[in-house]
Amino acid sequence: MKELSMLKFNLKASENKARRGDLHTAHGTVQTPAFMPVGTAGTVKAMTVEMVKSTGAEIILGNTYHLMLRPGAERVAKFGGLHKFMNWQGPILTDSGGFQVMSLSGLRKITEEGVTFQSHIDGAKYKLTPERSMEIQYLLDSDITMAFDECVKFPSEKKVVQKSMEMSMRWARRSKDAFIDRDGYGFFGIVQGGMHEDLRMQSIKALTGIGFDGYAIGGLAVGEGQKMMFEVLDYTACNLPADKPRYLMGVGRPSDIVGSVLRGVDMFDCVMPSRSGRTAQAFTSTGVLNLRNACHMDDLSPLDADCSCPACQNYSRGYLHHLFRAGEILGAMLLTQHNIHFYQNLMKQIRTAIEENRYQQFHDDFMNRYAHDRKM
Amino acid sequence: MKELSMLKFNLKASENKARRGDLHTAHGTVQTPAFMPVGTAGTVKAMTVEMVKSTGAEIILGNTYHLMLRPGAERVAKFGGLHKFMNWQGPILTDSGGFQVMSLSGLRKITEEGVTFQSHIDGAKYKLTPERSMEIQYLLDSDITMAFDECVKFPSEKKVVQKSMEMSMRWARRSKDAFIDRDGYGFFGIVQGGMHEDLRMQSIKALTGIGFDGYAIGGLAVGEGQKMMFEVLDYTACNLPADKPRYLMGVGRPSDIVGSVLRGVDMFDCVMPSRSGRTAQAFTSTGVLNLRNACHMDDLSPLDADCSCPACQNYSRGYLHHLFRAGEILGAMLLTQHNIHFYQNLMKQIRTAIEENRYQQFHDDFMNRYAHDRKM
Repeated sequence: MKELSMLKFNLKASENKARRGDLHTAHGTVQTPAFMPVGTAGTVKAMTVEMVKSTGAEIILGNTYHLMLRPGAERVAKFGGLHKFMNWQGPILTDSGGFQVMSLSGLRKITEEGVTFQSHIDGAKYKLTPERSMEIQYLLDSDITMAFDECVKFPSEKKVVQKSMEMSMRWARRSKDAFIDRDGYGFFGIVQGGMHEDLRMQSIKALTGIGFDGYAIGGLAVGEGQKMMFEVLDYTACNLPADKPRYLMGVGRPSDIVGSVLRGVDMFDCVMPSRSGRTAQAFTSTGVLNLRNACHMDDLSPLDADCSCPACQNYSRGYLHHLFRAGEILGAMLLTQHNIHFYQNLMKQIRTAIEENRYQQFHDDFMNRYAHDRKM
Repeated sequence: MKELSMLKFNLKASENKARRGDLHTAHGTVQTPAFMPVGTAGTVKAMTVEMVKSTGAEIILGNTYHLMLRPGAERVAKFGGLHKFMNWQGPILTDSGGFQVMSLSGLRKITEEGVTFQSHIDGAKYKLTPERSMEIQYLLDSDITMAFDECVKFPSEKKVVQKSMEMSMRWARRSKDAFIDRDGYGFFGIVQGGMHEDLRMQSIKALTGIGFDGYAIGGLAVGEGQKMMFEVLDYTACNLPADKPRYLMGVGRPSDIVGSVLRGVDMFDCVMPSRSGRTAQAFTSTGVLNLRNACHMDDLSPLDADCSCPACQNYSRGYLHHLFRAGEILGAMLLTQHNIHFYQNLMKQIRTAIEENRYQQFHDDFMNRYAHDRKM
């Protein structure tokens, strides 16, 4: 039997279910709870790595599906791995490709062996199996590799969800067998089972039987709404091994994160801050704004008076509005940086609140004050 | 009669017609020969001001036509002027709007009074006169204001060129009368007269009779080719007042600049490095490259081994190729920064060569080595 790989997770503090930790990887340490900006195709869109770093982000996510299609995993390896290719020196987590195959690719066929699908870029045919996903993530030199899984649509019939979860668990076993241990590199399993408590528990049992360095919760933020998501987290997160990091995939809005940390989640990723930044949506301490709205045209005030990011320190809402109206790339650059800065600042506040044993209060205040993001 | 405004120009060295100087403006000093990146609509496209500054650029250009349409000159003034609006602390030169009215706007009518035209953005009707152009540039708080002029198409009949030049000279007089002197703010006249030596001489005589802080050469780089442009410069530049800066508008390729400095030009602006950066064209010490070409896909080498810009220091050609293939904004950001860095580095080499009295040799070497950019 293989040894567990050498990803180290230290729990430094906790308050009820909320946890404050350090995750030590081959490319550096990540303070948790952590938010990972998404660098889909080898770049966090509209940002230099220096800009990403300046937001306080310590780890980013890369998408196996996108990178395997373009530029190709073997090519990234030839460039020295994803860190070197994109000049990001910190840790990188890669997803397994499973979710994007379902959501982005054309014609696909799922069998026990894996998935065959057509590239959304040029229609070329590809095959992704647990073994190939592990190989790709190895070639990318990912600090944290995710097990290959299937994620069913929401809503689906329970028997469909069950069948899919059971196959994902067999794929998790094959993923583990194919994963190559290296010092500082980690491997996460993914809990599936939809909105069904019994299936989630079966999935957790299967995964903990295999043994992973961390546990992700998949199949959420697929349209079920925040209330149902929190219900699933209520019975899922706290049943995962306490000494391993827990990662809620593809989540989410600020209030999703604050509520999930309360339920015991340590890691998050989401395209929301970067995608919103490119479409003129800004997260601020007083709410979500659309910078394209004419009300900002003559506004001399900063985007967020409480924010220390360059967009807020050096520019007015009126200028940002002008950039989006004029279709200027700088608008996307500044607003993406601001949004990711906002998220990182939120994570910092979350971490401090847990350390100071006042997270419940922080959570309650935030949920009252920031309820509006639930309408997004 | 009004005093000349207080823009100071120091000639520090010269070699034959080539000149090395300092231009002192209200917002700082510009080393000449200088290249001004174009910040059309209140941003050098795809760059933060920090990125622009890091290239060595000391002065940028703003477009009166674009800014009067959006966000509007009065609005920029309300934000404290263009420097404050866009967070560029250094000098700004604005053109007069005349050239863009001709090249970009819809239906237009030119009379002795000025030009009425339709916005290319929304079809709204605008009027631009010498007096309004001066007012707009004042509202923008431009360090260097350009006289309002007409620029005829190339080729045009000589009598058309003559009539237009004569009106531009009357507009130059009205511009001067409307310009408000302020310490450190300058005002440039624009020589017209097409490819006709006698008309150029008449234009110079008219402008020097009015008196300006600097003299621009307009109506070149309009399709006449480098050879003819240099012929016009041969008799135009050296007949301008020796103690005032000379600015060749809208030029150009690296070899255009090197050849124009030899003929006595001190200042340049062109969208070429920034526009090329957005379309994957890179200026390098060994030639012009298109990063979209498949030949760069597996290339681990830097874009330009002789370049110290971030794109060349931290990334491979293969990565830049990937960014353009994937349509990633970061490609435009990095390549624009590289191209403007390349231009600024060229200007630095030009300045040093003049200081060291070896500019003729530098020119000859460059023209031999870099002839390929003339095919662009």
